[in-house]
Amino acid sequence: MEIKEEILHKAKLARTASRKLGILSTEVKNNAILKMADDLEKGIARIVEANKEDQENAQKQKRTKAFIDRLFLNEERIKDIASGLREIAKLPDPVGEVVKMWKRPNGMQVGKIRVPLGVIGVIYESRPGVTADAAVLCLKSGNSIILRGGSEAINSNRAIAGILSNAAVSCGIPNGAIQIIEITDREAVTELLKLDKYIDIIIPRGGEELIRMVKENSTIPVIRHDKGLCHTYVDGEADLEMAEKICFNAKVQRPGVCNAMETLLVNKNIADRFLPSMIEKYKKAGVEIRGCKRTKEIVKNIEDAKEEDWNTEYLDLILSVKVVDSIDNAISHIAEYGSGHSEAIVTNNYSNAQKFLKEVDASSVFVNASTRLADGNQYGLGAEMGISTQKLHCRGPMGLEDLTVLKYIVYGDGQIRE
Amino acid sequence: MEIKEEILHKAKLARTASRKLGILSTEVKNNAILKMADDLEKGIARIVEANKEDQENAQKQKRTKAFIDRLFLNEERIKDIASGLREIAKLPDPVGEVVKMWKRPNGMQVGKIRVPLGVIGVIYESRPGVTADAAVLCLKSGNSIILRGGSEAINSNRAIAGILSNAAVSCGIPNGAIQIIEITDREAVTELLKLDKYIDIIIPRGGEELIRMVKENSTIPVIRHDKGLCHTYVDGEADLEMAEKICFNAKVQRPGVCNAMETLLVNKNIADRFLPSMIEKYKKAGVEIRGCKRTKEIVKNIEDAKEEDWNTEYLDLILSVKVVDSIDNAISHIAEYGSGHSEAIVTNNYSNAQKFLKEVDASSVFVNASTRLADGNQYGLGAEMGISTQKLHCRGPMGLEDLTVLKYIVYGDGQIRE
Repeated sequence: MEIKEEILHKAKLARTASRKLGILSTEVKNNAILKMADDLEKGIARIVEANKEDQENAQKQKRTKAFIDRLFLNEERIKDIASGLREIAKLPDPVGEVVKMWKRPNGMQVGKIRVPLGVIGVIYESRPGVTADAAVLCLKSGNSIILRGGSEAINSNRAIAGILSNAAVSCGIPNGAIQIIEITDREAVTELLKLDKYIDIIIPRGGEELIRMVKENSTIPVIRHDKGLCHTYVDGEADLEMAEKICFNAKVQRPGVCNAMETLLVNKNIADRFLPSMIEKYKKAGVEIRGCKRTKEIVKNIEDAKEEDWNTEYLDLILSVKVVDSIDNAISHIAEYGSGHSEAIVTNNYSNAQKFLKEVDASSVFVNASTRLADGNQYGLGAEMGISTQKLHCRGPMGLEDLTVLKYIVYGDGQIRE
Repeated sequence: MEIKEEILHKAKLARTASRKLGILSTEVKNNAILKMADDLEKGIARIVEANKEDQENAQKQKRTKAFIDRLFLNEERIKDIASGLREIAKLPDPVGEVVKMWKRPNGMQVGKIRVPLGVIGVIYESRPGVTADAAVLCLKSGNSIILRGGSEAINSNRAIAGILSNAAVSCGIPNGAIQIIEITDREAVTELLKLDKYIDIIIPRGGEELIRMVKENSTIPVIRHDKGLCHTYVDGEADLEMAEKICFNAKVQRPGVCNAMETLLVNKNIADRFLPSMIEKYKKAGVEIRGCKRTKEIVKNIEDAKEEDWNTEYLDLILSVKVVDSIDNAISHIAEYGSGHSEAIVTNNYSNAQKFLKEVDASSVFVNASTRLADGNQYGLGAEMGISTQKLHCRGPMGLEDLTVLKYIVYGDGQIRE
């Protein structure tokens, strides 16, 4: 009952704050963000100390090196976070933009205006930098935020959220606009997910298990940030030099992230010419190749790709490779196994480029570019709340605009329904 | 197990169909819609016969007159439905519209293009006309639809959906694009709500209990079409003649629908002048008035408004009336009791008009017009799937565009992530 009450209290406070926050001027919000960035830098010692506790706990729990690295904060990383916040202050304020307005035959003017979503709950794992990014993106877009990070980063998150919240309040941001849930008990999450009266949106960022738990328990609308099982299709009319560069980048540049390529599809007409040197280049970079039967006929000494390989997001230096007969086969393979994240074609054939863009159902579809470019900063949106892999509301990198929604406004002069 | 399998089968078929449907030309879709309208008219006798069965069942179950009227179909009503479909054929096709495109410093062109949502499940009650509207709106926007109407209209819905689906398939629309669930068992709905692998969106249209059930059981994103507890605030500087006309229309023109007014808020400065004649007019029209203490001081012989009145969507000729000190009090009352549907102010004060538009959090906010105008046709969107009262994806009348989402497309010439 105590947990329930505390979560409810925070949710109500967030709702009350959101009413004031939604109508604040851009100037007040930006000044607060700059103060938050400054105070974050002033608080480096405090944050680093808190982070050490988290790291020690992670080591006691024998977490992997990658896990501990995601958790790690030092002066440099905190300064990077602070400058990220300053970048958000520079972005245009999406709130209040009238995106359309039209006149009806009865003389009334109907318009659509951008307004905040209201109260956003963010449930995330490990990286404590998310705490700052998410808080400031929500503040800039006029939304209250309730943060619920993982227990592994609780000390870091508490230190960061405390600094940010105090800085914000000192600049006129309403109390309750930025809150963190410090209860690491899972019950805190299940309680939160039922408060649809006070919370408008839940954004889960993390592994498949987290996403599934949220999806199954939330009565609040959810924006999923799910896995990325991304493909690159090298068409029969591709520039093979360009293809090699793009495919190498998509797999190797940073294999542990959601927009990295997991499966390479190659048209049979160029497979003989393309695969030997491509695979050699991959092998030199330490990539383990798992090929289909036809791939193995072209390049010897590689592992079999099994059915489960086409379904696997490796997030590692492993790549499955398949030779396909046609662009239609490539598109079908992607429809069956892709996760709707990011998909690319390399081709010089105009019709195939257009066909791929049109028919592939993913949040980002690329012609002649690396899937690694699917990213808010790369697209020029500034920082992102993550990458949405669902269909409702927004797909792909979720920037400031995606933290708002359009409401209708009507200017009348006495119109009634006849 | 049988129910589960049938629902799963339909969901998979809908998913497969959606891939083809999403890339059909506008011409094919429009031709199919016109054929569907024609066949609906040709099938009038069959539909009317099926509808008689539903009406007889409703009478046996001693349903209310209003209930049976919503269920009722005759030649005229079916012709109206058919001409509604022809209107949808005339609307612009939203699919494939590139709404923005910009160039990044590395030379790649990033754009956002409108694509269908995929597979939409619509769960609705009574009005069998919804079957046709929803099916054709989804078809036009490139989405497969799975319809699940109430058991009270099962015969009418089955007849309508059968005619529409056959007409569509005969014009080249993929089989499975329009399907109806004929199992009236509630288990069919709970199974449907778990199929997030195949269904992208669930739209519930109906009473509070239906909405709550869907919200609590769905692992698929939901667009809620919830109740409308709408207010009109008559400001201290209102044109009282205009106010009377608007307030009368908002309550009396059609009290049983979600955009009708339930509570009238009146500024204290004009309450003396406005309320006596307004309430007299209401009483003549058969409206029962429930007033706050100050209202009752101005007009005698009216009922007390109790706390629960401010929370009640009457959907009837009943109105609660409250005198408020200021526009801020009106806005606070709306924030506390409103359902975020449609809210109106009547005023000639410029600042108050702007303040109301900005600060009131509802899907439609009106200045000097009746809340009854919150409607897809009135706004010029054509037919609507309903009125969304949630924040995610879309608010207010949900037209064709709201049945789509934007995906990113990138035209590159070899860009990689550095």
